[in-house]
Amino acid sequence: MGDRIKLGMVGGGKDAFIGAVHRIAARIDGEYELVAGALSSTPEKARESGEALGLAPSRIYGDFREMAIRENRIKDGIDAVAIVTPNHMHYPVAREFLRRGIHVICDKPLTATLPDARKLAKVAAESDALFVLTHNYTGYPMVRQAREMVANGELGAIRVVQVEYPQDWLTEAVEQTGTNKQSEWRTDPARSGAGGSTGDIGTHAFNLANFVSGLELEALAADLQSFVPGRRVDDNGHILLRYRGGARGMLWCSQVAPGNENALRLRVYGEKGGLEWAQEDPNYLWFTPFGEPKRLLTRAGAGARDVAGRVSRTPGGHPEGYLEGFANIYAEAARAIRAKMAGEACPAEVVFPTVEDGLAGVAFVDACVRSSARNAAWVKLA
Amino acid sequence: MGDRIKLGMVGGGKDAFIGAVHRIAARIDGEYELVAGALSSTPEKARESGEALGLAPSRIYGDFREMAIRENRIKDGIDAVAIVTPNHMHYPVAREFLRRGIHVICDKPLTATLPDARKLAKVAAESDALFVLTHNYTGYPMVRQAREMVANGELGAIRVVQVEYPQDWLTEAVEQTGTNKQSEWRTDPARSGAGGSTGDIGTHAFNLANFVSGLELEALAADLQSFVPGRRVDDNGHILLRYRGGARGMLWCSQVAPGNENALRLRVYGEKGGLEWAQEDPNYLWFTPFGEPKRLLTRAGAGARDVAGRVSRTPGGHPEGYLEGFANIYAEAARAIRAKMAGEACPAEVVFPTVEDGLAGVAFVDACVRSSARNAAWVKLA
Amino acid sequence: MGDRIKLGMVGGGKDAFIGAVHRIAARIDGEYELVAGALSSTPEKARESGEALGLAPSRIYGDFREMAIRENRIKDGIDAVAIVTPNHMHYPVAREFLRRGIHVICDKPLTATLPDARKLAKVAAESDALFVLTHNYTGYPMVRQAREMVANGELGAIRVVQVEYPQDWLTEAVEQTGTNKQSEWRTDPARSGAGGSTGDIGTHAFNLANFVSGLELEALAADLQSFVPGRRVDDNGHILLRYRGGARGMLWCSQVAPGNENALRLRVYGEKGGLEWAQEDPNYLWFTPFGEPKRLLTRAGAGARDVAGRVSRTPGGHPEGYLEGFANIYAEAARAIRAKMAGEACPAEVVFPTVEDGLAGVAFVDACVRSSARNAAWVKLA
Amino acid sequence: MGDRIKLGMVGGGKDAFIGAVHRIAARIDGEYELVAGALSSTPEKARESGEALGLAPSRIYGDFREMAIRENRIKDGIDAVAIVTPNHMHYPVAREFLRRGIHVICDKPLTATLPDARKLAKVAAESDALFVLTHNYTGYPMVRQAREMVANGELGAIRVVQVEYPQDWLTEAVEQTGTNKQSEWRTDPARSGAGGSTGDIGTHAFNLANFVSGLELEALAADLQSFVPGRRVDDNGHILLRYRGGARGMLWCSQVAPGNENALRLRVYGEKGGLEWAQEDPNYLWFTPFGEPKRLLTRAGAGARDVAGRVSRTPGGHPEGYLEGFANIYAEAARAIRAKMAGEACPAEVVFPTVEDGLAGVAFVDACVRSSARNAAWVKLA
Repeated sequence: MGDRIKLGMVGGGKDAFIGAVHRIAARIDGEYELVAGALSSTPEKARESGEALGLAPSRIYGDFREMAIRENRIKDGIDAVAIVTPNHMHYPVAREFLRRGIHVICDKPLTATLPDARKLAKVAAESDALFVLTHNYTGYPMVRQAREMVANGELGAIRVVQVEYPQDWLTEAVEQTGTNKQSEWRTDPARSGAGGSTGDIGTHAFNLANFVSGLELEALAADLQSFVPGRRVDDNGHILLRYRGGARGMLWCSQVAPGNENALRLRVYGEKGGLEWAQEDPNYLWFTPFGEPKRLLTRAGAGARDVAGRVSRTPGGHPEGYLEGFANIYAEAARAIRAKMAGEACPAEVVFPTVEDGLAGVAFVDACVRSSARNAAWVKLA
Repeated sequence: MGDRIKLGMVGGGKDAFIGAVHRIAARIDGEYELVAGALSSTPEKARESGEALGLAPSRIYGDFREMAIRENRIKDGIDAVAIVTPNHMHYPVAREFLRRGIHVICDKPLTATLPDARKLAKVAAESDALFVLTHNYTGYPMVRQAREMVANGELGAIRVVQVEYPQDWLTEAVEQTGTNKQSEWRTDPARSGAGGSTGDIGTHAFNLANFVSGLELEALAADLQSFVPGRRVDDNGHILLRYRGGARGMLWCSQVAPGNENALRLRVYGEKGGLEWAQEDPNYLWFTPFGEPKRLLTRAGAGARDVAGRVSRTPGGHPEGYLEGFANIYAEAARAIRAKMAGEACPAEVVFPTVEDGLAGVAFVDACVRSSARNAAWVKLA
Repeated sequence: MGDRIKLGMVGGGKDAFIGAVHRIAARIDGEYELVAGALSSTPEKARESGEALGLAPSRIYGDFREMAIRENRIKDGIDAVAIVTPNHMHYPVAREFLRRGIHVICDKPLTATLPDARKLAKVAAESDALFVLTHNYTGYPMVRQAREMVANGELGAIRVVQVEYPQDWLTEAVEQTGTNKQSEWRTDPARSGAGGSTGDIGTHAFNLANFVSGLELEALAADLQSFVPGRRVDDNGHILLRYRGGARGMLWCSQVAPGNENALRLRVYGEKGGLEWAQEDPNYLWFTPFGEPKRLLTRAGAGARDVAGRVSRTPGGHPEGYLEGFANIYAEAARAIRAKMAGEACPAEVVFPTVEDGLAGVAFVDACVRSSARNAAWVKLA
Repeated sequence: MGDRIKLGMVGGGKDAFIGAVHRIAARIDGEYELVAGALSSTPEKARESGEALGLAPSRIYGDFREMAIRENRIKDGIDAVAIVTPNHMHYPVAREFLRRGIHVICDKPLTATLPDARKLAKVAAESDALFVLTHNYTGYPMVRQAREMVANGELGAIRVVQVEYPQDWLTEAVEQTGTNKQSEWRTDPARSGAGGSTGDIGTHAFNLANFVSGLELEALAADLQSFVPGRRVDDNGHILLRYRGGARGMLWCSQVAPGNENALRLRVYGEKGGLEWAQEDPNYLWFTPFGEPKRLLTRAGAGARDVAGRVSRTPGGHPEGYLEGFANIYAEAARAIRAKMAGEACPAEVVFPTVEDGLAGVAFVDACVRSSARNAAWVKLA
């Protein structure tokens, strides 16, 4: 395993959901050590959060720029930084670290706006440091296997992609109660971006569909709604998809669908077979070769491929979950970072979401908003 | 039970799928007796089929007009006729019987074309006889219950309707092999109508969504495809839905989705709760009151309502299926026919799909085809 | 189809559950016509029930002996009789009809006592008439297929059989409330037999396991309980099974397991593979060839065999249920009766539960009761 | 979080399954730091394994006694040791560490033999150090919740416990191929103990049933088999259970059931309701209050209790799995160890399997073997 990668974190202080997830993901394989943080934009909270995590006082920062500057200068400064702030801060934070050659592992969506996304893509391209976007659902072993099966032609040419991501946590106007921080920034266009459900979860669905199908979206027609009175962003989106090459699809994202906790689900159909996968039961992949019985492929069990086994930690029947899938993004990043540190090429098998994937995601949100404003007209991804 | 209703049948000779289904549906509750038939447009086949069903020779017809005329004249002629021909014959056949006061139980979709549908609606309106359309999925007990729960306001105002009906039996060009009669007429616009999957199964999905949600569709945007080379009708349709009052929805129908046999599935989400139902597991209805655990409501079990029990024949855990749901349409028709015969009002609880529902279905197909021809523009139902 | 088989019924008057099931099962395929009945031991109820079913007054009997005698004498008397009384009446009723050459279709268990079962087996053996026992679960298409797959050696030598049949309807002392007829006779040893859950549902589980596995039970060890205070028969049974040839198994039956409606479930494991089937989802059969992914075999879909298709009425994805499975017993009986009438051998493919199966079932209950009385000692089937 | 607990490990070198699991479990919450190890009884392998894990050379031991002695002496020696050797080594290894006041986290079953188990229980009782047994399935949040619901009386008095743990990985004689280390020691009585499937997985099932039901087993009757020719331990066990107070149960464990990966499943039924939980889908708990619909309680979702939330890391719909459940044992151990270090009482809410639980498990295996040798006679737990 060798020395651990020294990791910093921006955002993710107390009460944050995704910061804690990133920290666990970084710990699972023992590849990282969290040594520095600017965990909150509120200095007092930054300090308390840093102490609670056992950071040395000198490595607790109240400001991410200060952190980038100092960590870049000191001996044993961080190798990489995890960015887990609200979306609008991804770009300014990432820029500071990328410019100083510090690798960035950034939560999705890439940015709150398309111009920011383009600028960040440019900065990342110019940097020698890596940029990894945590579209964590691509880390699930059976998602990896689904992708390989499509790429191998086991489904034949893809015709139809059905992807959906319903949740129910915004069924009521919880962001107006003053008690739910998560909902506040995620429904605030200034911090989250112009897309609500489209940005928060639609981007995941879009990314997952691309990742598995290997298709590239050409145009979409989106009908977005804000069902909850007073909500400033969409909380439900119905989107028609046209992929290059002729495949078609539908994407549904919703945060107002009671009975759905986090029900991301992908179905891909080709000339020769179909695949189904559901995030809430991630160890299973259903595969039907046309004309044959449906098969239940299980992670690391009968029917699993090396590509799934490579990112599994337990045998079949010992379920892995969200955190292991997330950890796979960190593990892949670690492999890439170590190769970089060693001056070697990254192994071909290493796969993680890139800044280009993130740019595509923000362009997807932008296209959804533009299409919906034009009565669900077809628009191309910018 | 009293005397059985004397039933005739047009179509449904050897090799037909749906004719046999209608006959079983008519038998299950012992309400009907099949006594006459014009079971095929091919005289020899009509005769053989009639004999195989044990019809008296004098009641086996080679021509539906002759049957209508004679059955209307003879003592103990049929009370009702089941029409199970290809779609384009529904109108001419129904007309002959309705005009003579013979009740009609007709397979869906109502007709192959919108003009025919309008004409049939007019004929039905002018007839004293009943017209019943076998949108059989509305006969399932838990579908009845779902409808009542929505009507009772248990879900609050409806926001989102997700309905889908994927199959896989047309994944390959089976209609071009000369071995599959079903696929031949169902992909022939002259016999089936301009819609392929939209007409054959999309109309079921559309009808089911309306039936349960109680909503009325205002406009749709449809992106239809014919994926299989040489296919003359759509085999996949992606459709955005806008209901009066602001609810939105998506409808997906496909006959090229490997791994799906007959996977009609409806999900309805309102301000206060959500419902999920799947045709392949029809004895279950999933209900989530927002903020509470999901509940599994079972047919005739705990959580079942009278409205479901009324159309159930067995206790919970003794699964009912497609034929019982279909039989419920026949049973409801029998109640309506008996009321008519007795000169009484039909009990308020009796529910069956009407000619108006059928007209709406054909208008739906027409709108899908028009919208798709205009690049998925929004169109209103004619 | 030819002329219908003329059917009589003993038992099955108002409020009875299983009589109505038998009548529907007899109607589904149009093979039978119900023309006579002694539907209740209470004359008034017998008359009312007969009239409600549209029987001719002359064919409504207050006494089953009278019915047997008269139907045997009259022209066009019944060909067969369905016996749907409480268990203790199966033998005396069946005897009267069998002796007169009238075929018998009898509900399970065969009798309430082992001596009665033996006598009935003798009477049946001496009669030229057929005796068919409605162990209806053997009528399900996927159960037929499971049996064939085992017989074909697709699982290799069978090692383990797990069968269970939990229900919850007797969780409370409903038989003591005076409002539930079903529970009264089913918990009354004089009418139901010495076994409660073992007799009512354990016999189904036992029969199903034998039917599919092809194994013969050598010995069992049973620990029976009557959990509900005041209950006179077992309401839960835990039973170890030893089959001839070395296979082992477990059988659990319970009527006090909340959350289980009618959850009969069978799992069979051999040297080369495993099968799983659940009555509440009867269109599915799960098959795992060892070392390969689990496959979902669907009734009349991909993976279905002729043996299942032969007793199916609808394509895959159009679910069949309890009534169709039950109807298959009636359909098989019809084939056997027609062969008998024609003086022909019954086709080899026709399969139905026999009096010997019924005798084995009563011997199973007797063994359970004996074993449990001896502290779950091993006992052989008498 | 404070300083990490310094952890050593005995066993768990290359090729071991469970050692890697323990290490991940120890890392997930950042409570432990692995600093020392005697990872193999083969010195070369011990060294290589230690280096691969990044241990300092001075902390890599070839012998566990040497490790116990030295770690006890040095400054900053380990606080706790994880024992992940084959079963027969648990006692001798644990003894060395417990005697020196080093906390022990030990894999299950407690020991290979009952005498060893008793000796270990005595050593643990006499030590000031903690002993934690990794019956990891008790760490799942919904298992914790199930236990609380039973304890709260939500099911009423418990009547029936059905627990099963089928696997299929020993369907063939893989231990005789020389290629599968796991199967070799797990089927070797000298290393694994007299029980095969009963010891390896039956103990988990037994423990889980006790944990959730709160019941104490009084007697059992076991019919054990070794189906695979040449196998020296049981590979399938059918066991009747009698609990103090009158509840009854069945336990089935098997390693020869094709189609089962790791299908531990528990069902508990009481006078007022029933619960069902399956290890392979661990985020779900099914609860049926008698007479009401079944409810799906999800981890950290609607219906989840504090007792589940306390050991959850992600919101509902973000599935946790085997490793998180395992990590909960480590997390609870950390809380107990920190309380011990601080001289404080362990918080009442902290729950982990103890040496007494382990002793009960070994007594269970011993009773199974004794009962089976006496033809499945009832035996009491020693």
